[in-house]
Amino acid sequence: MTQLRLLGLSGSLRRASNSTAVLRGLQDALAPEAALDIFSLHGLPLYNEDDDGEHAPEWVRALRSAIETSDGVIMVSPEYNHGMSGVLKNSLDWASRPYGRSVLRGKPVLTMTASPAFTGGVRAQQQMNETLASIPARPCSGPRS
Amino acid sequence: MTQLRLLGLSGSLRRASNSTAVLRGLQDALAPEAALDIFSLHGLPLYNEDDDGEHAPEWVRALRSAIETSDGVIMVSPEYNHGMSGVLKNSLDWASRPYGRSVLRGKPVLTMTASPAFTGGVRAQQQMNETLASIPARPCSGPRS
Repeated sequence: MTQLRLLGLSGSLRRASNSTAVLRGLQDALAPEAALDIFSLHGLPLYNEDDDGEHAPEWVRALRSAIETSDGVIMVSPEYNHGMSGVLKNSLDWASRPYGRSVLRGKPVLTMTASPAFTGGVRAQQQMNETLASIPARPCSGPRS
Repeated sequence: MTQLRLLGLSGSLRRASNSTAVLRGLQDALAPEAALDIFSLHGLPLYNEDDDGEHAPEWVRALRSAIETSDGVIMVSPEYNHGMSGVLKNSLDWASRPYGRSVLRGKPVLTMTASPAFTGGVRAQQQMNETLASIPARPCSGPRS
């Protein structure tokens, strides 16, 4: 059996994050058919084009490599102020470069949200899908939780 | 004459940023009727609710204080992947807290974009205005450049 290698990104850094909890639950639910590695966005620097290129920060190179070597990505974000978190958007700004050669191009990406609000994270999820389509990755929406 | 005290935020950190250049141009154009202080988002940490509260990081307290003591804010962002930069969204996630008591509530905010693209930064600006309206600040759109 070929095991799928998936990468998980959580848009929330807090310890008791609902988004991270969803990813941890998926790790259990998907095994053994798929292995889901969670890449922590703690420590990722703020996007700065001046710092990009061959000498991009180690965290940025690690993020791009983790996406590139995965079979697909699962992104879960809270909804902050009617959008995805700045933490997640910042990681997508890094991952989307270099322009036209992003490791996200053609990559299947499942977007999910975890916000305890009346509408869930529907606006955050819409933003995630629009952002990914602009790269273009291959976004597909999972259930909101 | 009472001088207006405005605060400028640039969504791009690179040295030759068009967004920052717009703010610098406005500094000259608005003087002496208004003083525009540019608050650099370099060094602002990624949003983490666990780190917020009375012991929020110094940069975060400085950002909130600068917004609170200003008569209005001018935000200029590049458009990255059909949205505002993660750098700017991250700063708004910090500034929007505590929920219901954000220093941005009722604050006049002029949003502008500076992207050398066919549509300018129209999608980034729309996102900025929606984000600000959710807080709610009082967003108003300036020209795109």
